[in-house]
Amino acid sequence: MVVRVALNGYGVIGKRVADAVAKQDDMQLVGVVKTKPDYEAKLAIKKGYKIYVPDNASLDLFKKANVPCEGLYDKLFSSCDVVVDCTPAKMGAENKKNIYVPRKLKAIFEGGEKDDVAEVSFVAQCNYDKAVNKNYVRVVSCNTTGLCRTMGAINNAFGVESSKVVLIRRAADPNDIKTGPINAIVPETKIPSHQGPDVQTVLPIPIETVALKVPTTLMHVHVVFAKLKKPATAQDVKNVFANTTRIALFNAADGFESTAQIIDYARDLGRYRYDMQEIIVWEDSIYVDGTELAYIQAVHNEANVVPENVDAIRAMFNLCDAKTSIEKTNKSFGIK
Amino acid sequence: MVVRVALNGYGVIGKRVADAVAKQDDMQLVGVVKTKPDYEAKLAIKKGYKIYVPDNASLDLFKKANVPCEGLYDKLFSSCDVVVDCTPAKMGAENKKNIYVPRKLKAIFEGGEKDDVAEVSFVAQCNYDKAVNKNYVRVVSCNTTGLCRTMGAINNAFGVESSKVVLIRRAADPNDIKTGPINAIVPETKIPSHQGPDVQTVLPIPIETVALKVPTTLMHVHVVFAKLKKPATAQDVKNVFANTTRIALFNAADGFESTAQIIDYARDLGRYRYDMQEIIVWEDSIYVDGTELAYIQAVHNEANVVPENVDAIRAMFNLCDAKTSIEKTNKSFGIK
Amino acid sequence: MVVRVALNGYGVIGKRVADAVAKQDDMQLVGVVKTKPDYEAKLAIKKGYKIYVPDNASLDLFKKANVPCEGLYDKLFSSCDVVVDCTPAKMGAENKKNIYVPRKLKAIFEGGEKDDVAEVSFVAQCNYDKAVNKNYVRVVSCNTTGLCRTMGAINNAFGVESSKVVLIRRAADPNDIKTGPINAIVPETKIPSHQGPDVQTVLPIPIETVALKVPTTLMHVHVVFAKLKKPATAQDVKNVFANTTRIALFNAADGFESTAQIIDYARDLGRYRYDMQEIIVWEDSIYVDGTELAYIQAVHNEANVVPENVDAIRAMFNLCDAKTSIEKTNKSFGIK
Amino acid sequence: MVVRVALNGYGVIGKRVADAVAKQDDMQLVGVVKTKPDYEAKLAIKKGYKIYVPDNASLDLFKKANVPCEGLYDKLFSSCDVVVDCTPAKMGAENKKNIYVPRKLKAIFEGGEKDDVAEVSFVAQCNYDKAVNKNYVRVVSCNTTGLCRTMGAINNAFGVESSKVVLIRRAADPNDIKTGPINAIVPETKIPSHQGPDVQTVLPIPIETVALKVPTTLMHVHVVFAKLKKPATAQDVKNVFANTTRIALFNAADGFESTAQIIDYARDLGRYRYDMQEIIVWEDSIYVDGTELAYIQAVHNEANVVPENVDAIRAMFNLCDAKTSIEKTNKSFGIK
Repeated sequence: MVVRVALNGYGVIGKRVADAVAKQDDMQLVGVVKTKPDYEAKLAIKKGYKIYVPDNASLDLFKKANVPCEGLYDKLFSSCDVVVDCTPAKMGAENKKNIYVPRKLKAIFEGGEKDDVAEVSFVAQCNYDKAVNKNYVRVVSCNTTGLCRTMGAINNAFGVESSKVVLIRRAADPNDIKTGPINAIVPETKIPSHQGPDVQTVLPIPIETVALKVPTTLMHVHVVFAKLKKPATAQDVKNVFANTTRIALFNAADGFESTAQIIDYARDLGRYRYDMQEIIVWEDSIYVDGTELAYIQAVHNEANVVPENVDAIRAMFNLCDAKTSIEKTNKSFGIK
Repeated sequence: MVVRVALNGYGVIGKRVADAVAKQDDMQLVGVVKTKPDYEAKLAIKKGYKIYVPDNASLDLFKKANVPCEGLYDKLFSSCDVVVDCTPAKMGAENKKNIYVPRKLKAIFEGGEKDDVAEVSFVAQCNYDKAVNKNYVRVVSCNTTGLCRTMGAINNAFGVESSKVVLIRRAADPNDIKTGPINAIVPETKIPSHQGPDVQTVLPIPIETVALKVPTTLMHVHVVFAKLKKPATAQDVKNVFANTTRIALFNAADGFESTAQIIDYARDLGRYRYDMQEIIVWEDSIYVDGTELAYIQAVHNEANVVPENVDAIRAMFNLCDAKTSIEKTNKSFGIK
Repeated sequence: MVVRVALNGYGVIGKRVADAVAKQDDMQLVGVVKTKPDYEAKLAIKKGYKIYVPDNASLDLFKKANVPCEGLYDKLFSSCDVVVDCTPAKMGAENKKNIYVPRKLKAIFEGGEKDDVAEVSFVAQCNYDKAVNKNYVRVVSCNTTGLCRTMGAINNAFGVESSKVVLIRRAADPNDIKTGPINAIVPETKIPSHQGPDVQTVLPIPIETVALKVPTTLMHVHVVFAKLKKPATAQDVKNVFANTTRIALFNAADGFESTAQIIDYARDLGRYRYDMQEIIVWEDSIYVDGTELAYIQAVHNEANVVPENVDAIRAMFNLCDAKTSIEKTNKSFGIK
Repeated sequence: MVVRVALNGYGVIGKRVADAVAKQDDMQLVGVVKTKPDYEAKLAIKKGYKIYVPDNASLDLFKKANVPCEGLYDKLFSSCDVVVDCTPAKMGAENKKNIYVPRKLKAIFEGGEKDDVAEVSFVAQCNYDKAVNKNYVRVVSCNTTGLCRTMGAINNAFGVESSKVVLIRRAADPNDIKTGPINAIVPETKIPSHQGPDVQTVLPIPIETVALKVPTTLMHVHVVFAKLKKPATAQDVKNVFANTTRIALFNAADGFESTAQIIDYARDLGRYRYDMQEIIVWEDSIYVDGTELAYIQAVHNEANVVPENVDAIRAMFNLCDAKTSIEKTNKSFGIK
């Protein structure tokens, strides 16, 4: 079976998911919904993607700009098997009610939606099986995905008795010039922050999180403190991470002193759009004292949830098992 | 007795300590050592401070720039009772060996020096008495002072069983245009970082710290997780902070959403140089669950150690007791 | 006569104008209009300012926050002689129509409004006399004021044949954490930009401007190229600036290498809120080759238009002549 | 003939030139000189590049890090025809004296060197022929190259009577986390700045430049004002740019509101390392009034000089004519 996928919301995440879907041999990208005829739209057309618009206002914009589009999105939604909804936060829930449920369309939502929008909150390597044959799946946010991958691996290997995480978040995406701050640290003063409970929609571990925003655009950074159920060594933890998919170990000693060099390396590697789908754990930061573990990780928030969307589609149509899907997806990105 | 104070190193901290000393009725600022005849030097002269230089190269610079100076610093060091050494990190230890010990001069060092440079590492409200009549005292760094103030208060009230702190550091001071990063998060990958042990030079509590630098100039922010020895409520903790000197409670609900509004408020208050000597705890962030405590604080690193230097002088000459000194110093800054 | 002044819009500019008005002996600040009971409101009350609100929604916020306010602004507007309108851009024109004209209230508008909102666009040292006895005066924007001060002086002394200016604008104010960009240069691609024509509402000189935004919060910087009507020397130009009010000459050689050190100096000087009402011209940058002039200036946009508002009030009530008003205002700020 | 090329200094520019050389069919990359065994070194080895080191200290570092290297660079320099010297500014002149001249090696220098290091300062589309058969050629800096490309085209088409340029420079490269400023605008107060005379080493046009640094890492932006010798229209200028190699026209109306979206687009395009070798002119910014021209351009400083190095090699060995070389080089980058 080749699943016909529609992409609603062609922004930072949406355009990446579209490209990822287009590369899979068991999926077909039947079209994308976009509101503005900008450079992203023009490039989508060059790639052969069919563009649909949500309303007549958008239709006019495309006409005026002389950028071809296929018309209103109704046509798209009547010729697809599943919609990946990458619209701005909170719109997914509206779209579910107004579009997907009436049309009996399967749909994937992103982490900006509340978890009750879907039947399951999803991180492929944690709970692929729970999404099998489901109609509504939520791929959790970049931060939550990042924590689920590494803490899930730790939990599997050693058990997590309790944990505290501080999330130092990039305040805006690289192509977003409207959002600040320019020179401030912005804490979320509500403790614990929402990311902890969000992790628990995927992973049943005790976790408390505190989040702050800082004036950078590249990556989020997480500081993780965990109390393990059984003692380990730093080497044990390194081995676990080394043997877990979608995690990569980087060393400050190799010049990876910050998020900046990680991105520079991704550029040198020739990664498309310099995307690092893996969670980057600083190997030098892994600290274990008996059952006390600490480490620092970086999350490329533009990229890390993209493979999860691909795997979610496979699960929802029961195309294959978790391991097969993750390997297939990884291969298409050139990651391990 | 009026203590004659010399100030060595008239930079971000040094110029503030000089001004603070000049305001005390039991101290006299006999001169400052500066290397460059820049705007800070010119303003020092307007304030009536006598400027000395460390070497002939500096002497020439002052002559060329036509900025008056009193000559080499030997003259200054032979007419003072104590030197506050605010020279760049690691120079204090050199100066001790080469200048202060040979001249039998008492000296205060700052947090950039190792703790063994002095007989005691100092935070006035934590261990004033230990510095009484000492010859060499180290005022600990802005970060360490910030943690000692709030965690010391918590430890006194409830006991600290264990603690983890993440320090999100401003990467450069506002007047430093050479230092980056411009767009990156820079972790110290060595865990635990040095600030934990540094706190322990003042305060005997279990503490592990992780530090990162971010592209902002205003203030450091600390996220503190502590396990208390006896249970408390959030209100208990607020009461403790409200009743502790040099700590101020701010609420995000009043518009203090970030370090930026704290500084804006200090400007509105008319604080000289917008200096906030107090540690700012976000009252809304204080979270207690039984014996688990978390809170977020901001540290104005240009300012918070300045009163400690004044108190250290009083202790070293046994001018008065801790409470009297702290009150005197506070009053001179207009803080509670 | 003591003019009764109401201040509508107590933000970055409004709070400064309120403080400035409160310091004048020929003016009385009868109240300020504010929408939110935040730290600025609380401090206004400590200063003895009466707070009014624009609507019942704001009234409720103040009640809930337990911050005293005098009620709806109608009461304020019936007991004042003039309103200084510092509300967000474009609201001034609405307020004029809905509030000031119906109540026959004189009003001052800021640079966010179009020039046709008022009878005259105003920079005190350029055209004070034109505002005498007028009912509606617009104090032009920080950028326009900055250009009018220095280019007006140049025009008076040497005549301006033609001019080109590039404005490198700070993208957000220091207490604004919502606005970006964090890491980009944002040009206004419409050439010439609106600032040139805006200068011409005050000063009849040929000028073309190009503007860009950059990720900093401190000050705007302008690069000015002017073709003079008669030749001059760099020293001539320095003399003109040195003898013109509200312009200050700073030298990179004194350590003023960037906007950061200018602000550091304002802090060291003890300027309230570190405000630099003067336009800062880098003396070292002044370059003249015959009739070709170039120089670089910095504009502290939070502060530089504040004295203009005070002078505009005096002109509108014909309290005194330009020279007397400017001197009075300058004295109240402690500037030359 | 296949020219054997050695690359000295494998940093931001060096690694790009190495990759570019390796792709040409008339060149062979025989090795690169690198000082540190970091991630760039490891990736170079994966690419099959031979690494040499400048001294024994570096040799030790490579050994300790277990990163293979071929030994000291003498071996490399005795088996190549030309060295591209991408070492830090001012080192090129030293290397010329100490290494290249004694070995009678041809060498290319970069824009950090003074122009007298070489026989010709080079921008391929401006003066390829002058470099033919030369031994020492200097590829001018990113800023100078950017100005030569667009102003050279304008000069050819309409003549340049006089010109003024303001360069708003990115303060640090994306992978440089040491350099600031974080929050300031830093003017070069020496007017005119050095870039004007540097343009004149390539292009005989009257030009005065003023430069500033701002806290961003992505691209430089130039504002160009030119007085033309003969009148033109905006459309004429667009046509000239559209028909000139290594210049690309972008429109703000397509979403290119800043340097950030240009880079985002380069990422979407799949450009290796998101490199934009072309100078980006904002088409919407092109303004012409008779003989007065203004426009804004962006320069991707990591990338734009890289093709020039390739062309310089061809010229120095007279491998082909300018047009052929530029086309060959362009094709290897996938640019027009």
